[in-house]
Amino acid sequence: MNGLIVLLTDFGYKDPYVGVMKGVIKSINPKAEIIDLTHMVRRQDTYEAAIVLLVSAKYFPEKTIFVCVVDPGVGSSRKALLIETSHYYLVGPDNGCLSLLAQNDGVKSVYDVSESKYRLRRVSYTFHGRDVFAPIAAWLSRGIKPEELGVRISFDDIVKYDLIKPEIIENTIHGSVIYIDVFGNIMTNISMDDINKIKLSYGEKLYIKIDDKELVCPFVPSFSYVGLGEPACYINSWDYFEIGVNHGNAAEKYGVKKGAKVSITREKLESKN
Amino acid sequence: MNGLIVLLTDFGYKDPYVGVMKGVIKSINPKAEIIDLTHMVRRQDTYEAAIVLLVSAKYFPEKTIFVCVVDPGVGSSRKALLIETSHYYLVGPDNGCLSLLAQNDGVKSVYDVSESKYRLRRVSYTFHGRDVFAPIAAWLSRGIKPEELGVRISFDDIVKYDLIKPEIIENTIHGSVIYIDVFGNIMTNISMDDINKIKLSYGEKLYIKIDDKELVCPFVPSFSYVGLGEPACYINSWDYFEIGVNHGNAAEKYGVKKGAKVSITREKLESKN
Amino acid sequence: MNGLIVLLTDFGYKDPYVGVMKGVIKSINPKAEIIDLTHMVRRQDTYEAAIVLLVSAKYFPEKTIFVCVVDPGVGSSRKALLIETSHYYLVGPDNGCLSLLAQNDGVKSVYDVSESKYRLRRVSYTFHGRDVFAPIAAWLSRGIKPEELGVRISFDDIVKYDLIKPEIIENTIHGSVIYIDVFGNIMTNISMDDINKIKLSYGEKLYIKIDDKELVCPFVPSFSYVGLGEPACYINSWDYFEIGVNHGNAAEKYGVKKGAKVSITREKLESKN
Repeated sequence: MNGLIVLLTDFGYKDPYVGVMKGVIKSINPKAEIIDLTHMVRRQDTYEAAIVLLVSAKYFPEKTIFVCVVDPGVGSSRKALLIETSHYYLVGPDNGCLSLLAQNDGVKSVYDVSESKYRLRRVSYTFHGRDVFAPIAAWLSRGIKPEELGVRISFDDIVKYDLIKPEIIENTIHGSVIYIDVFGNIMTNISMDDINKIKLSYGEKLYIKIDDKELVCPFVPSFSYVGLGEPACYINSWDYFEIGVNHGNAAEKYGVKKGAKVSITREKLESKN
Repeated sequence: MNGLIVLLTDFGYKDPYVGVMKGVIKSINPKAEIIDLTHMVRRQDTYEAAIVLLVSAKYFPEKTIFVCVVDPGVGSSRKALLIETSHYYLVGPDNGCLSLLAQNDGVKSVYDVSESKYRLRRVSYTFHGRDVFAPIAAWLSRGIKPEELGVRISFDDIVKYDLIKPEIIENTIHGSVIYIDVFGNIMTNISMDDINKIKLSYGEKLYIKIDDKELVCPFVPSFSYVGLGEPACYINSWDYFEIGVNHGNAAEKYGVKKGAKVSITREKLESKN
Repeated sequence: MNGLIVLLTDFGYKDPYVGVMKGVIKSINPKAEIIDLTHMVRRQDTYEAAIVLLVSAKYFPEKTIFVCVVDPGVGSSRKALLIETSHYYLVGPDNGCLSLLAQNDGVKSVYDVSESKYRLRRVSYTFHGRDVFAPIAAWLSRGIKPEELGVRISFDDIVKYDLIKPEIIENTIHGSVIYIDVFGNIMTNISMDDINKIKLSYGEKLYIKIDDKELVCPFVPSFSYVGLGEPACYINSWDYFEIGVNHGNAAEKYGVKKGAKVSITREKLESKN
């Protein structure tokens, strides 16, 4: 146990919710260290939380405890989970938000902590981040064993997301938009491996369709290889195919939203229709 | 002294104000640990700061030092205070922002630190968070005694807010809106005890009037007990009566602002007018 | 080495970028302590970053490591720098963002860390905050010597900003707006020393021209010396001349943007034209 607890929520920064979770953690384990991953996951977007956890976790030390509180079902009968993976501990509601990282890192065991005696004495109906997840993470960081904190259950019994794999048909890759960052860069589920399959080289021109919008831009190492205001596509820092605009906001410019369908190809789009 | 300092301001996250306060604290006490409660109290809203402190403090360890800098009177002759309460230390301007927590937790002693020799050598007219309050908190966390840090004064001599109690007249509770969170949930000053007095049970339909808007909704454990987009009322996680909309923003939907008058009753509102 | 690392970026708070930089630092040096200065520098505004560093640094302990990632040229051939100054270590891209503080504090040595073996094993084209700057700062905080981390270069060979000095002509000071804070206070490059040169006293009325807008207001210790909604000018907490509105937003009220020209004088502006 390294005593490092990482928080990921959709609570935003206006209210004292995150601060109070930290108070609970420090009350239980004064030596715990706490890092904010982000608290601006799109409200109640459990899939976005799952993506953020998936790409971020490997940059943290072994045995880090990730607490994810994006929890539209709080107060209902959804389970509260503690998952031990090959390298990490994940704490959060059973709605899929932990599942992409868990599957990617390799699941060792899953515990239902919904009725754990390590929760706060009074558990509210609306703030399990404070009353359930923060205390479980804090006690875990103090050395309480997972099997003490909850009841072991099967990984089959929890809610899971799948990271849908893109399809490659006749040298066209069909994928989707999975994240848009604050700069408006459009991240897809198309991985570096997928790109390697169609043997793309830097400098090649690509025809891209996002829902019904079409654009043409070069495949480059980064957006700084094109002129100001011009679009570029590249492998982003999480190793996914992304479309950006140098010094601009690609998502706004092309009116793209998360979930949009993306297809990319070397040939003119006209010839495909 | 546990060395834990909690910051609460209206400085927001754009400017380096909060970061610089932390620099001052670490310069004085490298071992101090600092937690952000929130820095998005509504600008210069000392009452909102008082409410946030009041509901949050009990989740922090004994002897935590709370520094509240919501300070519209900075540069005027308002006092700078250090208050020792039964469980905590409170540092901030004398404008009421510390007073709700102080009264609730029990005041042990009050110190005027306006002229403390533990302030920074040069005190600006506009940033006492950095020049007065951060240093006082940091020296306190290093073990300097409160009586060294300031001059003892009477609790009678400081500015106080009262948490106005709701009135119960003929089974109707009359209260007011004291906080609206980032999700648009409408928190009132009506406590769980007030609700118990009218013997409300889960599932009962309530008639609610907020200023001149009327709504009818069930009293439930949490908003997840009603359909998507539907209103619900419940005891929130701070133990106050709140109106929310499942997956929605109640304050926007009903056009409610902080300070609005609220009345709740089991009987039809028409029959009351 | 005090182990304190301060982060300054334009990444904002929505994405996990800052959190992941902290993960990298803690993976390398579990004992490092990390403080956020701010992550809301105006996007890609390297000059604003330079100003924020310049005014903030002196409030941090000796040997603090400042990491500035405002990096429009990421992925291009711009150098990555580590600068040792009289009191601090500065880490960031070679675009001027470190240069105002470096010159003000006194440069001891400059290192090009672009090809350092202490970077992450795989360096992306778009996120050097994570892959280059965070690791360099973390290894430095663990005690690796600067000359191990990079190649020594001359201060002459890096990009520098100058803090343009205001001009004083016939008792009129001509300067410019260098920062606008979240409250709308208008900070200029006119220092307390410049003001002393024209022997201004509190209470004197000043004629101020900002681009083509004119206003008249008293020179006071702080904006709390004027009525609600009224303008005031004063030496701000960073020791620069500033124009603010008591309980209001001066930049919005007068339509002022960063970079605007400012002239201030005791005499009526009409008589000058």
